[in-house]
Amino acid sequence: MTEPTPIDPTPINAVTTPAGFRAGGIACGIKASGQPDLALLISDRPAAAAAVFTRSQSKAEPLLVDQGQMRDPHIQTVIVNSGNANCATGEQGLADARTMLGLAAARADCDINLAFVSSTGIIGHFLPMDRIVAGARDVETSDDGGSSFARAIMTTDGFMKEAVTTFQAGGVTCTLGGCAKGAGMIHPNMGGPSNHATMLAYLTTDADIEPALLQDRLQYAVDRSFNMISVDGDTSTSDTVLVLANGAAGGALVTADDPAGIAALDAALLDVCIHLAKAIARGGEGATKLLEITVQHAIDRNAAVAVARTVSSSVLLKAALSKGDPNWGRVVMAAGNAGVPFARGDLRVWLGDRLLYEAGSTTGIPAATAADAVAEDLVRIRIDLGQGDAEATAWGCDLTEEYVRFNADYVT
Amino acid sequence: MTEPTPIDPTPINAVTTPAGFRAGGIACGIKASGQPDLALLISDRPAAAAAVFTRSQSKAEPLLVDQGQMRDPHIQTVIVNSGNANCATGEQGLADARTMLGLAAARADCDINLAFVSSTGIIGHFLPMDRIVAGARDVETSDDGGSSFARAIMTTDGFMKEAVTTFQAGGVTCTLGGCAKGAGMIHPNMGGPSNHATMLAYLTTDADIEPALLQDRLQYAVDRSFNMISVDGDTSTSDTVLVLANGAAGGALVTADDPAGIAALDAALLDVCIHLAKAIARGGEGATKLLEITVQHAIDRNAAVAVARTVSSSVLLKAALSKGDPNWGRVVMAAGNAGVPFARGDLRVWLGDRLLYEAGSTTGIPAATAADAVAEDLVRIRIDLGQGDAEATAWGCDLTEEYVRFNADYVT
Repeated sequence: MTEPTPIDPTPINAVTTPAGFRAGGIACGIKASGQPDLALLISDRPAAAAAVFTRSQSKAEPLLVDQGQMRDPHIQTVIVNSGNANCATGEQGLADARTMLGLAAARADCDINLAFVSSTGIIGHFLPMDRIVAGARDVETSDDGGSSFARAIMTTDGFMKEAVTTFQAGGVTCTLGGCAKGAGMIHPNMGGPSNHATMLAYLTTDADIEPALLQDRLQYAVDRSFNMISVDGDTSTSDTVLVLANGAAGGALVTADDPAGIAALDAALLDVCIHLAKAIARGGEGATKLLEITVQHAIDRNAAVAVARTVSSSVLLKAALSKGDPNWGRVVMAAGNAGVPFARGDLRVWLGDRLLYEAGSTTGIPAATAADAVAEDLVRIRIDLGQGDAEATAWGCDLTEEYVRFNADYVT
Repeated sequence: MTEPTPIDPTPINAVTTPAGFRAGGIACGIKASGQPDLALLISDRPAAAAAVFTRSQSKAEPLLVDQGQMRDPHIQTVIVNSGNANCATGEQGLADARTMLGLAAARADCDINLAFVSSTGIIGHFLPMDRIVAGARDVETSDDGGSSFARAIMTTDGFMKEAVTTFQAGGVTCTLGGCAKGAGMIHPNMGGPSNHATMLAYLTTDADIEPALLQDRLQYAVDRSFNMISVDGDTSTSDTVLVLANGAAGGALVTADDPAGIAALDAALLDVCIHLAKAIARGGEGATKLLEITVQHAIDRNAAVAVARTVSSSVLLKAALSKGDPNWGRVVMAAGNAGVPFARGDLRVWLGDRLLYEAGSTTGIPAATAADAVAEDLVRIRIDLGQGDAEATAWGCDLTEEYVRFNADYVT
């Protein structure tokens, strides 16, 4: 279980911290609010790339285009617009996504096959391509533009999500930076590269990494971070995580034959991905608390994941926690619905450090006493299935009236 | 697709309409509000019985006891308390449930093996057995007491749910009556007889039906009614549907060799169960609209069920509908997350009679035009997968700020 990392609201230009990357963002007029809505990232050379996309059957048009782009797993430039998801837009949407690839490639002065495109926002509306064309021409990129990029990909986010770390690989010190957006329609289920979230995350590193290895390690990290968060249980049509490794740090290539390099890469990916994933959960629409649900002693990881995700998605539990009610009964209820067999008598449930359920029964701790365990803005729930050695941690947030108000008023 | 049936708020004594049943309810002091909280149903003879229970791994103690009672599928008396679920109460809870069996059997003057017990309400508290003992002694039963029974099983329900119908079986006209409760923690997944919701439904008929056949036809009807409703996606620890067939109409035994009798029984069970299930969905906590989601042309019924239930459970869609936003994009989103493969281009989505999505794209109908399709208190959503011949219908309700407020304040 990772301790919660404080969210740093200070711009840290994460995706442009590794060597060889420049980025920026601009307000091109997609959002009526006039907030930034177009972002561009450019590597100074083609980068090994790996991506995971939402497993939804209703993939947005940009993801369909990106799946084709990833057949050769090298990317040099990424263009992202917010305010409009270019989803359920059919042939026109596919054509618009391809046009965006061309705009990015022109700015990066690279082959169009090296471009990647994302769109996030409302579903079912065609992109205002005239504004995007002008924005793609005018957006400025720089090696301290990472936070400008991170700002421009936001939709309903209350704050920017950025993280950066370093690791040793290929004989040199490498840097891994990342940014993410997402606050609603958050229950990612991403796999790839043949699948397609509206959470978006972009990771950059100046390490040199063999593409198939990068894909494999990205999936591993995503399965333990973004794929373990839930705001509302709704998996988006546009969820995407992309990582670019451009080798600009000058180290040797990290391959499957380099266990030390892989271990360092894994640690860095997990660090950045978990930080960003938790920031998304904590920043969920209307949320006031971050929930961290750890399931221990499951028969295997799939079982632990299923229980943790089911509990993190319980509308009833999330509503109770919004008012500080230590409703462990709703944890027992939700744990029972994951499709994972367990013996009632073996189940144990803690809120914070307080054991509230064991041997099939309440431990008798009064609600008033247990309430301190859920009073803070981080609520830790621990569930022990008493079966095996597998463990998983999921993150979520409380459900407030503000969430409903927001999403009822966020009109198409 | 069944047309919505208006909910009749008039007491109709449904469970005591068939011959040979008497029932009643009383306020025995479990609920602080002083509302009725103990209900008793008695057949004048042992009745063939069938039951389905929630498939949750966290079954409440009364369900564990009832599973034992159903080994001999005959029941003569049912005792139900509301206000306390007797769940997560361990050995004490099991003993209390058995005590309730004895109280019911004493009132029915029958063997304790012919008794059935249910409890619904908060989780994790021991029953006030002194009040239940006094209540079980004092509750009056009569052959027009069905609505009194239906009233006493309610928890957060805004209105009583009752239904009654007649059918021809065994050469005579038989009557089937039923009542149900439930407004939150509603996403039933019941199977049986070896499994265990907090929705409760009790059906009575004066037909004479072979017990194994009754179990089989109950599961069929529940799979097309109660198991297709969702208020909040949370499956309860106590969901139970029980049907008693006492043969008091004097007809011949309905067996597996009587297709006409089975068809008539099926029609009656579906009629009553769908009526009650829709009443639960329409009466969901905070709900202002009943949603009816029909999935057509699926490859098989399981696929149709999965898509219909996933759409009916989408928090984002339910929030949009609460304010009358015709957010078909959220239908497309949710349909994509059911784990059911389909071709994007084959998917079609209607709100009411308006086709809003086909061929992978919006049909261009403006939101202002589509809004009338979701303005009324019944919202019909139709999804065509374009694959096979299977169909399923699910029911749900909108998600309002009132739901969150209610469940945040419904403190343990």
